[in-house]
Amino acid sequence: MQTPRHSLRMLRALELSKSSAPRRISLPRWPIGRPSGGARRHMSDNPPKTPSFEELRQPKPNKWAFRLQLMVGLPLTAALIYSILTDDTKAESPTQVKAEGPTIAEADALLKRENGVNETSPMRLRMEEFIKRHQKQIVAELEKVDGVKFTIDSWQRPEGGGGITCVLQDGNVFEKAGVNTSVVYGRLPRKAIQQMRINHKALDPSVESLEFFAAGLSMVLHPSNPMAPTVHLNYRYFETADEQGNTNAWWYGGGCDLTPCYLFDEDAIHFHKAIKSACDKHDKKYYPRFKKWCDEYFSNKHRGESRGLGGIFFDDLDETEKDQEQLFSFVQDCLSAFLPSYIPIINKRKDMPFTEHEKQWQQLRRGRYVEFNLVHDRGTAFGLNTPGARVESILMSLPLTARWQYMHQPEAGSREERLLEVLRKPKEWV
Amino acid sequence: MQTPRHSLRMLRALELSKSSAPRRISLPRWPIGRPSGGARRHMSDNPPKTPSFEELRQPKPNKWAFRLQLMVGLPLTAALIYSILTDDTKAESPTQVKAEGPTIAEADALLKRENGVNETSPMRLRMEEFIKRHQKQIVAELEKVDGVKFTIDSWQRPEGGGGITCVLQDGNVFEKAGVNTSVVYGRLPRKAIQQMRINHKALDPSVESLEFFAAGLSMVLHPSNPMAPTVHLNYRYFETADEQGNTNAWWYGGGCDLTPCYLFDEDAIHFHKAIKSACDKHDKKYYPRFKKWCDEYFSNKHRGESRGLGGIFFDDLDETEKDQEQLFSFVQDCLSAFLPSYIPIINKRKDMPFTEHEKQWQQLRRGRYVEFNLVHDRGTAFGLNTPGARVESILMSLPLTARWQYMHQPEAGSREERLLEVLRKPKEWV
Repeated sequence: MQTPRHSLRMLRALELSKSSAPRRISLPRWPIGRPSGGARRHMSDNPPKTPSFEELRQPKPNKWAFRLQLMVGLPLTAALIYSILTDDTKAESPTQVKAEGPTIAEADALLKRENGVNETSPMRLRMEEFIKRHQKQIVAELEKVDGVKFTIDSWQRPEGGGGITCVLQDGNVFEKAGVNTSVVYGRLPRKAIQQMRINHKALDPSVESLEFFAAGLSMVLHPSNPMAPTVHLNYRYFETADEQGNTNAWWYGGGCDLTPCYLFDEDAIHFHKAIKSACDKHDKKYYPRFKKWCDEYFSNKHRGESRGLGGIFFDDLDETEKDQEQLFSFVQDCLSAFLPSYIPIINKRKDMPFTEHEKQWQQLRRGRYVEFNLVHDRGTAFGLNTPGARVESILMSLPLTARWQYMHQPEAGSREERLLEVLRKPKEWV
Repeated sequence: MQTPRHSLRMLRALELSKSSAPRRISLPRWPIGRPSGGARRHMSDNPPKTPSFEELRQPKPNKWAFRLQLMVGLPLTAALIYSILTDDTKAESPTQVKAEGPTIAEADALLKRENGVNETSPMRLRMEEFIKRHQKQIVAELEKVDGVKFTIDSWQRPEGGGGITCVLQDGNVFEKAGVNTSVVYGRLPRKAIQQMRINHKALDPSVESLEFFAAGLSMVLHPSNPMAPTVHLNYRYFETADEQGNTNAWWYGGGCDLTPCYLFDEDAIHFHKAIKSACDKHDKKYYPRFKKWCDEYFSNKHRGESRGLGGIFFDDLDETEKDQEQLFSFVQDCLSAFLPSYIPIINKRKDMPFTEHEKQWQQLRRGRYVEFNLVHDRGTAFGLNTPGARVESILMSLPLTARWQYMHQPEAGSREERLLEVLRKPKEWV
C-alpha cells in the first residue's frame, strides 16, 4: 500500500468551502438576485473576470444564485489551507505567512488578462485551461446521453482561483452525476512543507512558508440503470513557488475506475483497453503499475472486496518520473481517454431492461460505494475532518440512494455472486 | 471532546468475526443442517452449554444455520484481540501470551454450571446475565410493537463468551432494528495495557499480558415512519484479571440517544426525562455531565450538526467515580429506563400519516446517520479497520436505506428547518 499522499489531500482542499472561513468577508462582484422560482434552473458562473465560463450556460437569476452569493462572498483563508495540511485547527493568521510582492495568483491573473493562455504559459494556467475545457466537453457529452442539463455552481476566490461544480440529479440516465473543477492558490506553512518533502525533495525545507497552486477535475457518475456502471475520475496538478514566483516542486496525480453492479466482461475490457492505450503511449510500465495501485487503493478492506473493477490510480508523479511536459501530456491523454472509454458503455447499458431484484442489488452495491468513500477514502475523510470543508462538493461523490441489508448473500451461481468473485480477486482485463 | 477510550473500542471488539481468525478451526458442537427453505425463519441459539438462550426461540434447521456454522466454527483468536487493541496487524501468536492454569473464562464456565448466577457471582457473570435478560425483554417488547419476529444469530467462542445478534428487517414498524449482546474473554498484550493505563491506574504495567473480559448490549432501531425517531443504545462492562484470576481494573461505559427526522418536543422531553430520572437516582451531576458528553460525541462535525437530540453518553466509569456495585446499579437503571423512555414514543408515532416529501426527508436524515457512523464513530471506524471484524454486526447500525441529495435545503419556516436548528444548537430538554 502507498503511504498517504499530499496531493490527494489537496484534491479535497480544492473542495473547501469559503463559507466557514472566519476572517474576511467580501461582497460578490456582480449583481445577484435572491432565488425567485422553485424549478431547477441552470446558471452561468458569470463574474466579469472569468468570461470563459460564460459559454457554459446563460446566466439567469435563480435559486442557485443565493448559494453562489454565499460561496463567493466568503473567501477560503490561508488559515484553512494551514489546517488542511497540518490537521491543526489552530491556524496561523494569513498575515503571518503573507509574503511581499505580487503572489503567483496575481501574476497569473495578469498574464491571463494580457496574453491569454497558450503553450508558453505557466503550467498552472495550462492545467486550469485544460481541465475547464474538458469539464465542458464531458458535461456536454453527458447531457447528450441524458437529455437533462447539469446545474452549475461556480465560485471565485478573491485570492485567486475558484471552482465549477456541475451536478445532474434525477436525470433520465444518471441518478446523480457530478463533474467538478477547482483551482486553489494559497500558502503552505513550514510543517506542511516538511511533510511534503518526503515525496518531493525539490521543496526547500529552510523557508517559513511557500506559495502553492492546485488544480483538479473530479467526477463521479451514478447511472440509474443497474446494468450501467458507476465511474469515477480525478486528475490533478500541484505546485509550489519560491519567493520570486518560480516553480519549486510540482506533481501530478489522478486516475479513473469503473464500478458496475452487474458484470459485463466486454465493458471491463473496453474500459481498461482505452486506459491502457493512453498509458502505453507514454510508458509501457504505466498501465500495469497504475492498475495495481488502483486495485490496492479502491478496496473495501473491511469486506475483502474491491470497490469496483479498477482502472488506474497514481500520485506524486514529478521530475523523478519524467519531465513536466511529458507528464502533462500523459495526464492529458488519460483525461482525453475518458469519454471514449465510458460513453459506448453507458449508451449500451442505459436502456437495458432490469428487474426490481436487480435494482435492489444496485442499491446494496451503492451502500458499498458509500462505505469506501466514507471509511477508506483518505481524501474524503480528510476533507470532512477539515474545518470549513465544502461538504456538498466533497459528498457529491455519494450516490443518490443506498441500502444496507443485514447478512445479504447473493444466490449461488447468480450474476451477483459472479461480481463478488471478481471484486474479491481483481482480474487482469487486458 | 474526550480522547479515544478503550472500552469504546472493546465494544466493537465484541463484534469481531471469527470467520477470519486464521489459527484454529473447531467444529460446531451441535448438529446443524444446511439451509433448506428460502423463507425467513427464526432460530434458537441452542448449544447445550447455553441453555438460557433457548427460551428466546425454538431451534429449526434453516438458512441461518449455515451462517451460524461459519460463525461458531472459526474462533476469534488472541491474535485478533491483540490487533484490536494495538492497531498492529502483526499479531503475537496466542501461545506466546497464554498463561498457565485455568483462564477466567474457564473459571466462569465452571461457576455458572455449578452455582448459576446470583448476587455473589463475579461481576462478569452478573453483567452477562443482566444484558442477556434485558436483550430478551427488549426484543419481546419490540416484537409486540412491530408484530414481526426478530431473526436471531447466536454464536459461541470456544475460549469462552459469545454473542446474540437479533435483527428485524422490513418489519411493520421497524425498517431495521438490531439488538445485540456480546461477551468476549481474551488476553491483552503489554502495549494495550500501557495505553489503557492512561485512564485506569489499577492496571499493572509490569506484566506481559492480562486476561480481559468485555460484555455489552448494543441496539439501534430505525422505524419506517418518518414521524418515529431512530434510537441508539449501548451499555458495556470491561475488566481485566491478574494471573490468579482476581479482578484488576474494571469500568463501565454506555449511553442512549434519540434521532428523529421530525421534531416533537414532547417526545424529546419524555425521552430525556426518563434518562434523567435514572441518572438522578445515583448522582444529580450525572445527567448534565453525560448529556453534554453525548452532544459532543454524537456530532456530525463536518456539517456542524448533532446526529440527533442526544441523551446520555459516558465511558471509563471506574472506582475513581463510585464503587462497582453503585456503578452497576447505575447502568442497570439506565438500561431499565430504555423501554419506558421509547415505547410510548414509538407507539404514538408509528402509525402517523406522512407524505412522500416527509419520507424523502427521512431518507436524507438517514444519510446523515450513515455519515456519523462511518466518518466519526470511533468504534465503527476502528472495528472496520480491524482485520477479521464481523462487518455485518458492526454495520447493523446503518439504516436499511439512505439518500444524499446535492445542496438540499429545507424551506424557510418548515418543520425540516426547525429540526436543523435544534441539531445545530443542542437544547436542554428538561
